[in-house]
Amino acid sequence: MSSKIEIKLAPNSGFCFGVKRAIKLAREAAETNKQIVTLGPIIHNPQLVESFRERGVDSVNDLDQVTTQTVIIRSHGVDQDILEELKKKGVEIIDATCPYVAKAQELAKRLSNEGYPVVIMGDSNHPEVKGIRSYIDGEVFVIDNNDTLPDKIFPRLGLISQTTKSLEDFQQVASSLVPKAKELRIVNTICSATSVRQHATLLLARESDIMIVIGGFNSSNTKMLAKICHNIIETQHIETAVELQGEWFKGKHKIGMTAGASTPDWIIVNIYNEINKYTGSGSPYVSRIEEIPGYKE
Amino acid sequence: MSSKIEIKLAPNSGFCFGVKRAIKLAREAAETNKQIVTLGPIIHNPQLVESFRERGVDSVNDLDQVTTQTVIIRSHGVDQDILEELKKKGVEIIDATCPYVAKAQELAKRLSNEGYPVVIMGDSNHPEVKGIRSYIDGEVFVIDNNDTLPDKIFPRLGLISQTTKSLEDFQQVASSLVPKAKELRIVNTICSATSVRQHATLLLARESDIMIVIGGFNSSNTKMLAKICHNIIETQHIETAVELQGEWFKGKHKIGMTAGASTPDWIIVNIYNEINKYTGSGSPYVSRIEEIPGYKE
Repeated sequence: MSSKIEIKLAPNSGFCFGVKRAIKLAREAAETNKQIVTLGPIIHNPQLVESFRERGVDSVNDLDQVTTQTVIIRSHGVDQDILEELKKKGVEIIDATCPYVAKAQELAKRLSNEGYPVVIMGDSNHPEVKGIRSYIDGEVFVIDNNDTLPDKIFPRLGLISQTTKSLEDFQQVASSLVPKAKELRIVNTICSATSVRQHATLLLARESDIMIVIGGFNSSNTKMLAKICHNIIETQHIETAVELQGEWFKGKHKIGMTAGASTPDWIIVNIYNEINKYTGSGSPYVSRIEEIPGYKE
Repeated sequence: MSSKIEIKLAPNSGFCFGVKRAIKLAREAAETNKQIVTLGPIIHNPQLVESFRERGVDSVNDLDQVTTQTVIIRSHGVDQDILEELKKKGVEIIDATCPYVAKAQELAKRLSNEGYPVVIMGDSNHPEVKGIRSYIDGEVFVIDNNDTLPDKIFPRLGLISQTTKSLEDFQQVASSLVPKAKELRIVNTICSATSVRQHATLLLARESDIMIVIGGFNSSNTKMLAKICHNIIETQHIETAVELQGEWFKGKHKIGMTAGASTPDWIIVNIYNEINKYTGSGSPYVSRIEEIPGYKE
């Protein structure tokens, strides 16, 4: 008895509002024929960064390497002092910081200015977190789920999150901080697109035999999707179709796909069509993400 | 083989700071030979309330019944409007509100005045909670562990607790409210004496064969101690020594005792001596709480 093989893409997969906006700004800038660089990769997807490089918009990592007329601030935002330096340089700045990240920067600053030591739940080395942290003048702690604060009771404590973290982890950290502060002021800076995507991914993983998670290996939100899926079912995290291995799909009937906020549609479409070849699922070849079963933004 | 029978009292059992203070104020008032009533029982312990009645300090439940020259506000505090009425009546007010409860009232008022709908974790019928609630002009919700708020996302939300609730429950409610508010401002109003007593009780329950929890059946913090013990080991909640039953102790070697914040020392001492008789533990008869093994304030 062989049952039909299904391939589904989790709803709300792929580009979020902030990424779409950053790419739109960068494309418009590229069309002006000015000399442009992005300071750091515009989003955490190597394939998209490469496609911008081919259009003449290169990515540099250091302020000193910004020798162009125009610089694009990437979706993750940038340190406050680097922004000041760029302004001093007199270079034209196109700010593609995700509005939700900019909001988190502003809220971090406000909490700090009001006298709250600020706890950021996030990866201390992530550019978004470094950027948010730079807006805090007072005491600041960057913690992951398992980190602890100094052994004392704080009179006041603020808590925010890297925008792409999971709500469940944020709730857990919030709970663990309750005994650490007389007053704990929690501002939920998790992007709702992120939590909606995570939830849709969770539901799909529960009804799948294998999950294919698509997105940059350096993408925080994609890694979080992989972690969510790993806890439920066999999971493979890949960046592009060439990494697919036929043996993953042997004996599998329900194949689930999901993609991080920085994953371009064409990569998702390629992978869908490639899995079709491996599994002989009989699903039609698709050319647009909207044609993949399950997808609905 | 029969091993030695041990009876231990959990450290920090019995009267807390706020209760001691309320009783001291009431005793001093009783000695003045003025006509005095307490508005509601001074603390949630019927035996102590009765001993005050014998000294001429009666407890009334209604504002209209206050016909004396002097009124004592009990440790749980009182509704703001009742306090105003008493002031209008021109009666002398002795305010025995626990300073931690007064602080919770003040913080509730401040959160509300700053535009936060306030969630109180507590028993909606408890006089302390009713009192705290009366200081909130704006939106207010009283919830227990399992209650839920209206199905919407609040821009801002404040959270406080009845002072005698468990920290673990407060952490759980805090975690559950994180997704319900953009900003969640948590003020920990749980009395530290309460959490210290709960923790000591938990540790003793883990090494006991039975726990005897002593305190008023209407005492919130005593009921919480009983709940904590019930989750670990066989538990009996009693008010006085006459309720003890010899069969509870058959085959038991490690007998743990704990007592709520409103339980007078003489009741604890009586019960200790009575258990001694049942078990023949060979422990000496004691006359003061400090002589009972395990007790250390």
